[in-house]
Amino acid sequence: MSVTVTLESRIRDALRPIRDYPKPGIVFQDITPVLGDAALLHDAITAMAEPFASRGVTHVVGIEARGFILGGAVATTLRAGFVPVRKPGRLPWDRVSEAYALEYGTDALECHQDGLPGGSRVLVVDDVLATGGTASAAGRLARKLGAEVLGSSFLLEISFLKGRERLEGTPCHVLASV
Amino acid sequence: MSVTVTLESRIRDALRPIRDYPKPGIVFQDITPVLGDAALLHDAITAMAEPFASRGVTHVVGIEARGFILGGAVATTLRAGFVPVRKPGRLPWDRVSEAYALEYGTDALECHQDGLPGGSRVLVVDDVLATGGTASAAGRLARKLGAEVLGSSFLLEISFLKGRERLEGTPCHVLASV
Repeated sequence: MSVTVTLESRIRDALRPIRDYPKPGIVFQDITPVLGDAALLHDAITAMAEPFASRGVTHVVGIEARGFILGGAVATTLRAGFVPVRKPGRLPWDRVSEAYALEYGTDALECHQDGLPGGSRVLVVDDVLATGGTASAAGRLARKLGAEVLGSSFLLEISFLKGRERLEGTPCHVLASV
Repeated sequence: MSVTVTLESRIRDALRPIRDYPKPGIVFQDITPVLGDAALLHDAITAMAEPFASRGVTHVVGIEARGFILGGAVATTLRAGFVPVRKPGRLPWDRVSEAYALEYGTDALECHQDGLPGGSRVLVVDDVLATGGTASAAGRLARKLGAEVLGSSFLLEISFLKGRERLEGTPCHVLASV
């Protein structure tokens, strides 16, 4: 579809690749120029939400910190609630936790234990799908609370890292791949 | 206006006060139940944006981390761009910094040095106006880059802390006070 191709090229043109960040050998894709462009931000949020608009999403689960920027907007667009998934120790109420693998060792993500009522229909939102570790952990958190995960939506995919393979077969929507 | 009163009471009813968090003597106002309520989130975002809808806002400046959730949604609603203001060392490109006072000592906030083009018209968004230290620092960052700060918008105000007095006389919009 020409509309999708055009949005992807606009996103790719706006990205700022930063070499050796956060460490040597990594090319970090800085999305702040995408966020700062009013028309591009609006079109990206609309496109991230669109495939799920008729799926009855009750809650968007957004992953700290850049997933909060996009997730809050996607939730508002879908008229869904927003549930933050955060790094350990940053949520003030009773929490559930899910570990995920890092290159060396593990880290974890948390959400409130009462964050999703039973029967919730969840869309996971983040800025970038890389290895899929955090998005997969966010999905497991939602299922642990009794929710159904309808899929996930990302601005950008780092395709060689094959993160899609870790999303348990749920639909994965990305606006641009690098 | 009855509509505003009703939204304020819905927000106040949804807040979860948590005693002695993050430290003894503090009552933390947990906004996650507001975010998780689809209708309340949508109405709150609409109301946070509304007073600035005809002011020609070009960029919403959102303060890490909960200000990202609301700021991204307000930016999309206003068809403005979004500029993240983060804690030190978390943005990948060249940064400008502004210090603000804590109870003991100081902390700082940063934004990208090219985050706001000259002539930008900025709305600062965060979840809670407490002492006003972070919102004031965000406004100074925007002005340092040559932007005009049109005002600020918050879900909640902790009124006894008098944060409004630190906002340099710019319009301050809050949906609920505690």
